Amino acid sequence: MHYTKEEIENLSKVKRLNLINSISGIKPANLIGTISSEEQSNLAIFSSIVHLGSNPALLGFILRPTIDVPRHTYQNILDNSCYTINHVTAAHTHQAHYTSAKFDKHISEFEACGFTEEYLFGFNAPFVKESKIKMGMKFKEAIPIQSNNTVLIIGQVHHLVIPENVMNAEGQLDLDKADNAGISGLNNYYSLTKVANYPYARVHELPKFNSKQ
Amino acid sequence: MHYTKEEIENLSKVKRLNLINSISGIKPANLIGTISSEEQSNLAIFSSIVHLGSNPALLGFILRPTIDVPRHTYQNILDNSCYTINHVTAAHTHQAHYTSAKFDKHISEFEACGFTEEYLFGFNAPFVKESKIKMGMKFKEAIPIQSNNTVLIIGQVHHLVIPENVMNAEGQLDLDKADNAGISGLNNYYSLTKVANYPYARVHELPKFNSKQ
Repeated sequence: MHYTKEEIENLSKVKRLNLINSISGIKPANLIGTISSEEQSNLAIFSSIVHLGSNPALLGFILRPTIDVPRHTYQNILDNSCYTINHVTAAHTHQAHYTSAKFDKHISEFEACGFTEEYLFGFNAPFVKESKIKMGMKFKEAIPIQSNNTVLIIGQVHHLVIPENVMNAEGQLDLDKADNAGISGLNNYYSLTKVANYPYARVHELPKFNSKQ
Repeated sequence: MHYTKEEIENLSKVKRLNLINSISGIKPANLIGTISSEEQSNLAIFSSIVHLGSNPALLGFILRPTIDVPRHTYQNILDNSCYTINHVTAAHTHQAHYTSAKFDKHISEFEACGFTEEYLFGFNAPFVKESKIKMGMKFKEAIPIQSNNTVLIIGQVHHLVIPENVMNAEGQLDLDKADNAGISGLNNYYSLTKVANYPYARVHELPKFNSKQ
């Protein structure tokens, strides 16, 4: 099947949302935890966390326009500059999915969706106790994206928590062992199975690939 | 295990690269295809493709600094504003991984790594014949990220190719059926297994979650 730009524009809203949210491939499942100046905690699932660089250790994520819906996560980050990113395990996808419902500001998604707040290292944002891999992030930069009025939020890793058995000696994480989940589109959750590990790719070590396979 | 910002900074370069490239969770495996004004094709694996919005249908990806290494993909996009994004299947991760080697500008990674160029719809960039899900993208915006001198490249979907059996009536894609691959860090490839599909999350339809599980 082939869709042109115009055919995509003419799809029904729901079909377009589902389809275009799926076309980037598998997405990471993460929960972002924050707390307001009034000490109201907030938790929301995000599938747009993206690696920006390792030194400094920076991650970004995309926020939708703030015109139509209040964005508690964003307001809390602007207010106290701390937030946590917590990996969703395959066992917690149902609860994690429901953090995307539009709860009132005075409702904590931790409680509503059955997650446990965890305060660690004197950091001013709640971690998710149920997550195995989690980070304490400090806000660095908010970059407006003119093409569609979204915002790229950039933060630096200040705390990183990893179960000992998930990391090897070279620092590689085994997402299998961490029971990590992935997301496709808005509704579909995937488990992960490691199929290959390849060395750093060097031209003079190139395997012989047959172009007609 | 707990790492602070300072402990991350003090890791060896390789360990820090491996670790921090892994901490966002699973990443999509995509090949970006371009062609230069001299009609030299280029193919490179990217794990940073991110959904920005559905209407217009926009995807972004992160480019590393251009100071140390020439970035053929970026130059070709700036020159003719067309590029393709092609999903990597689990069967092609080995070949796809090796497109990250630093080939000379006159070498096409299509040929070196055994992929087949496919020119479709009169679009001025090569698609990957071996990929099942593929897009023809037109460049919209390049946003410099001051925090680490990377660049967010934004493009709009002008052509979208999907196998018929992979999409359901609501526009959701089954990445399982598309044999899609995911990446962790720089070297580890994963296959995907669908574990759940949940409805759009509404507060008044919230399941009863037990917070002490």
